[in-house]
Amino acid sequence: MKKRYETIIIGGGIIGASIAYHLAKAGKQTAVFESGEIGKKATRAAAGMLGAHAECDKPGTFFEFARASQSAYKRLAPELKKISGIDINRHDGGILKLAFTESDRVRLAAMAELDSAEWLTAEEVFEKEPHAAKGIIGANFIRDDVHVEPLSVCRAFAKGAKLFGADIFEHAPVLSVEAASGGGVRIMTASGAVEAEHAAIASGVWSGVFFKQLGLNKSFYPVKGECLSVWNDTIPLTRTLYHDHCYIVPRRSGKLVIGATMKHGDWNDKPDLNGIEAVVKKAKMMLPEIGGMKIDQCWAGLRPETEDGNPYIGRHPENGSVLFAAGHFRNGILLAPATGEMITDMIVGRPVNPAWEEAFKVERKEAVHK
Amino acid sequence: MKKRYETIIIGGGIIGASIAYHLAKAGKQTAVFESGEIGKKATRAAAGMLGAHAECDKPGTFFEFARASQSAYKRLAPELKKISGIDINRHDGGILKLAFTESDRVRLAAMAELDSAEWLTAEEVFEKEPHAAKGIIGANFIRDDVHVEPLSVCRAFAKGAKLFGADIFEHAPVLSVEAASGGGVRIMTASGAVEAEHAAIASGVWSGVFFKQLGLNKSFYPVKGECLSVWNDTIPLTRTLYHDHCYIVPRRSGKLVIGATMKHGDWNDKPDLNGIEAVVKKAKMMLPEIGGMKIDQCWAGLRPETEDGNPYIGRHPENGSVLFAAGHFRNGILLAPATGEMITDMIVGRPVNPAWEEAFKVERKEAVHK
Amino acid sequence: MKKRYETIIIGGGIIGASIAYHLAKAGKQTAVFESGEIGKKATRAAAGMLGAHAECDKPGTFFEFARASQSAYKRLAPELKKISGIDINRHDGGILKLAFTESDRVRLAAMAELDSAEWLTAEEVFEKEPHAAKGIIGANFIRDDVHVEPLSVCRAFAKGAKLFGADIFEHAPVLSVEAASGGGVRIMTASGAVEAEHAAIASGVWSGVFFKQLGLNKSFYPVKGECLSVWNDTIPLTRTLYHDHCYIVPRRSGKLVIGATMKHGDWNDKPDLNGIEAVVKKAKMMLPEIGGMKIDQCWAGLRPETEDGNPYIGRHPENGSVLFAAGHFRNGILLAPATGEMITDMIVGRPVNPAWEEAFKVERKEAVHK
Amino acid sequence: MKKRYETIIIGGGIIGASIAYHLAKAGKQTAVFESGEIGKKATRAAAGMLGAHAECDKPGTFFEFARASQSAYKRLAPELKKISGIDINRHDGGILKLAFTESDRVRLAAMAELDSAEWLTAEEVFEKEPHAAKGIIGANFIRDDVHVEPLSVCRAFAKGAKLFGADIFEHAPVLSVEAASGGGVRIMTASGAVEAEHAAIASGVWSGVFFKQLGLNKSFYPVKGECLSVWNDTIPLTRTLYHDHCYIVPRRSGKLVIGATMKHGDWNDKPDLNGIEAVVKKAKMMLPEIGGMKIDQCWAGLRPETEDGNPYIGRHPENGSVLFAAGHFRNGILLAPATGEMITDMIVGRPVNPAWEEAFKVERKEAVHK
Repeated sequence: MKKRYETIIIGGGIIGASIAYHLAKAGKQTAVFESGEIGKKATRAAAGMLGAHAECDKPGTFFEFARASQSAYKRLAPELKKISGIDINRHDGGILKLAFTESDRVRLAAMAELDSAEWLTAEEVFEKEPHAAKGIIGANFIRDDVHVEPLSVCRAFAKGAKLFGADIFEHAPVLSVEAASGGGVRIMTASGAVEAEHAAIASGVWSGVFFKQLGLNKSFYPVKGECLSVWNDTIPLTRTLYHDHCYIVPRRSGKLVIGATMKHGDWNDKPDLNGIEAVVKKAKMMLPEIGGMKIDQCWAGLRPETEDGNPYIGRHPENGSVLFAAGHFRNGILLAPATGEMITDMIVGRPVNPAWEEAFKVERKEAVHK
Repeated sequence: MKKRYETIIIGGGIIGASIAYHLAKAGKQTAVFESGEIGKKATRAAAGMLGAHAECDKPGTFFEFARASQSAYKRLAPELKKISGIDINRHDGGILKLAFTESDRVRLAAMAELDSAEWLTAEEVFEKEPHAAKGIIGANFIRDDVHVEPLSVCRAFAKGAKLFGADIFEHAPVLSVEAASGGGVRIMTASGAVEAEHAAIASGVWSGVFFKQLGLNKSFYPVKGECLSVWNDTIPLTRTLYHDHCYIVPRRSGKLVIGATMKHGDWNDKPDLNGIEAVVKKAKMMLPEIGGMKIDQCWAGLRPETEDGNPYIGRHPENGSVLFAAGHFRNGILLAPATGEMITDMIVGRPVNPAWEEAFKVERKEAVHK
Repeated sequence: MKKRYETIIIGGGIIGASIAYHLAKAGKQTAVFESGEIGKKATRAAAGMLGAHAECDKPGTFFEFARASQSAYKRLAPELKKISGIDINRHDGGILKLAFTESDRVRLAAMAELDSAEWLTAEEVFEKEPHAAKGIIGANFIRDDVHVEPLSVCRAFAKGAKLFGADIFEHAPVLSVEAASGGGVRIMTASGAVEAEHAAIASGVWSGVFFKQLGLNKSFYPVKGECLSVWNDTIPLTRTLYHDHCYIVPRRSGKLVIGATMKHGDWNDKPDLNGIEAVVKKAKMMLPEIGGMKIDQCWAGLRPETEDGNPYIGRHPENGSVLFAAGHFRNGILLAPATGEMITDMIVGRPVNPAWEEAFKVERKEAVHK
Repeated sequence: MKKRYETIIIGGGIIGASIAYHLAKAGKQTAVFESGEIGKKATRAAAGMLGAHAECDKPGTFFEFARASQSAYKRLAPELKKISGIDINRHDGGILKLAFTESDRVRLAAMAELDSAEWLTAEEVFEKEPHAAKGIIGANFIRDDVHVEPLSVCRAFAKGAKLFGADIFEHAPVLSVEAASGGGVRIMTASGAVEAEHAAIASGVWSGVFFKQLGLNKSFYPVKGECLSVWNDTIPLTRTLYHDHCYIVPRRSGKLVIGATMKHGDWNDKPDLNGIEAVVKKAKMMLPEIGGMKIDQCWAGLRPETEDGNPYIGRHPENGSVLFAAGHFRNGILLAPATGEMITDMIVGRPVNPAWEEAFKVERKEAVHK
């Protein structure tokens, strides 16, 4: 292990891997320190929806940032395939945000007015997806809210970074981060200290301690999501179905990925029986025939929630050597490309969209509304 | 592959493996033909309860046969350990057949009167198992209805048989069985014909075709059972909880095995979402805290049901070279030792309990009542 | 289950699934009977190379048939995606058939002369794949010998067939096939008899019994192949490496699939330690750095070999209602599309390439040379 | 989470779980903080040999401590079963330390002279284990070097501790340990600070950082061990075979556990192809027939090595509130009971064997010889 890098990333989930990829591509001598294995925590558990519209209630800065990131995936899919050999399985079916009640419909109204969305009556939904639940009154259809395979994206970023010269250390937990005596940053690992000009904290829900070590009092809360997958050998379904934070995502392998519960404050990443029961119930509400499909796997992951629900992406207010990219909650997969680019731009000194900088900075007073 | 054996068994589930073990131990040159892997169909899916009382509504011939088999396990556990090195994990906690309603209690009354059973009030149940559901009005406690690990039993029988000289052919489906021209039996496999003095059909729900090939018109029906297991790291539970054909079995590993649905006519051995949902619901009814336990695995198996619900154990009415041991429904694990002994006794010419012979013979008119 | 279909296929591996897809698409009322699960025997075990050149020593009829099938995959990939939603993951890197010795080079010479192949010196190989073994003297590069994901292809065919109206019965072993009294064919299953105008036998290595039941004395031999996969997180590798019947296939997920041993006469489909050791040794010979890669999975499958090494594809010589499509040995994935089309053409009465008909007919005297 | 406990253990492997069990049983209000899941790091990877003799070259203090711990397992097996319901699967076959060469024999001589060991000639070995390699010249047979299932032991300790009132926090990494301002100890976790009168550091190879935070400069080195298991369906084998740090352990399930490589400085806990190849080679040397057995699983774990090869068990030299129990290298399973008792005795003020205290204290100059 080298004792000094230009840039260090703490955390090898999809956010850290994206930062590493963009920094290494920009020529920075980069190292990633991951306490476990690349992408095997929250990243692996995600369904991979790029739900820029689906996860927003109305347009605004957050939505624009999400749209930029969603759009970056179009470019990244072939680029990562070429560089790393890994296909991120970008699937282009789009999302149907189902409305079962009038109040559902009202809640979808603001987003339905966008050019990128289209309100469909129940009949129009059934034309596209004849197996959607009979009880719906319509749906907001968003063609651009496609999905990817999160672990493949993360592996592709990490391998790409490596092939651009980065070092990826797995099983290498970081114990502390501090300002180095000669400028820059110093981290402590089980194998000794490492220094760098810049460090980016991308440790998801485990980021709080590093914030504290660096003098910032920000809390992160786990919101556990339990998921399962089934094999769909029987019906056509090409669009993601979505309702009330739950979804059925049709993978290109023929699997349907179903999620997810929202258990606040639960640090355990294994699904329990109550969670599985709740997910099955929601899935059957959206797609009754799913009840007869054979189960493939169950799992869970921890979404990193911040105090105001939005991620911290930006510099330490008093120490420009330290940057943060954590707290992406339900949107880590969606926001990974834009986050990686933004952190890289800040480190290499390229211009950054000032609205985004303002919205996601650590020392903000008010959160961007989602 | 030899072309001739003294005895041939078709089917390498727990019934076939028990027959093979007892025949090989009795000195017979024996071969088992299993279409897949030893014990990997219905055997593997079973929870392993030795529910002689639990699975009967009243005493009688079936119950006596079941008791004899249950008792044989006491002797077999150390014997199989010594011969094969495999521990069948016989667990001695007993079963609590829970009553939630007065009609539950009435249904349990006949068995509760036996010396081997004991009626407990709700308070007495909570003394033994404080986490049982608060809604119960009592339970029938049966100390002797212990449990074993089905796949370990089956592996131990098969390995024991092998060490006594038997041949075990896996991945060797039998296509036909017929009387051999020179006496005895002739079977056809993908690797050619094999003959024997005696053949025993122990093919579970797949036995019907062999019955038909041998001129007997008996049907077998699959009754699919879906199961799951969880890790119990939190509460003491040493007795099996049972209600309305569902159960929670505490394994010596710390797992709880939960089952099972009853899906008539379903040949598929994978669990679907409806099945998992139903099993979770039943388990939470008996043990509310199970809802918070982490899921381990889901699976399913096919119980072989006959027209009258009892197994066929005995000779072909017109051809003494052919014997049957199939259709054990929910009781294959429980009845395997007694079935293996009975078929062996018939083949080697030892006396057989005439009541059992009469009760389980193929050409019976009326079934033993369970 | 219906009692009568227009066409019945026995076997739900990739060959049977391809036939079902093409028949159902052609409007035939079709049923598939699979003893286990769709694609879970030899199909699942295959690496998925479309090695039209790689698996041939010289051009000829077999090669032409293989090329036609390879080329059909180009059309099928988008077609199956559209119809079934399943991506077969056709990967376009091509194969490098490595030569380590002069005699290797000589053996590759005949195929290297084809326009579709290109002989590369060692230096030229290293330009494309810098991590290939230093000891090579060159390689035959075949751009068209790409690969697919076998189980995805099979699932896509089966689901496509179903959406065109076919019935797919899993866990439905067929016990016998015979001429029906009123013309056509009659099969026997555990759930009763079913009749059809035409039946196609596509049961891989288990086909021999059906040939015998239909009066044809053809033997099929299992040739077990043991495989493993590793995660390649470190080096670029986009082309399949191949030497002496072994291969390293780079999947789009970042895995490398490595295979395979050739164990003649072994019916067991689980890998043993000797097999794993042999595969690792061969892989390290081709790609030394693979020794440091982390293992993902081990498995095995049974290739169906015929007496002369070529498949039987065609009609029963005396009963036009019965067709055969079995014995594809190492080439089942490659030949599935052309086999499915050829059997369909014969059944619906479309013209068939007479050279292929002659080469693969059941009653042939001499085999096509591979 | 409470803010204060009497005793805190950092690390939920078998050492930490044993300490927690003994402390909770002694009435201490105890909490365990485990960064991942209980027993899922080095503990799970171990084969579970209680090799008091096997792992020593000659008698002495280390051996006596190991013998005491080995002997404690006899008592613990029924005790843990009763309290937790979990069977630790103590198996009583003993170990055969094989000698292939004269120098092997010489190396075994010191231990062979003990009353608890017995030197066997090759013929005597074959009488016990007829399938041991023909090339041996003899073996040291140690009846007391039995084995247990490590993860079951760890689960039983943890569940037992919980039922005695302890709190077990999984997914709760500890970031720092320090003297509390008011006396006792203070740790920092992602969910805040917790204080206690005493803390025991039992973090295996990850302990070094805590030593450093507490002012002690001790290094820990990972020594990765790669293992695999196979199913033994064919031969009798009831004793562990051992040679040159490798072993074949016959489990009561019918599996053989085979290990292990020694890769110094490798933090990755996944096996690679080179490792698997090396383990297979060693296993075939001891038991040639193992080559034909079917593979079950591959895995790896990190043994925690200290500078002098012996564990640190004892108090911080300057702060009696902090205790250490780390660096058990290959002997964590064997030494867990005695370590748990010793740390508990120190905390509750019971007498401790002074020779052991001296031998394992942190501030020792010279190590006990193994």
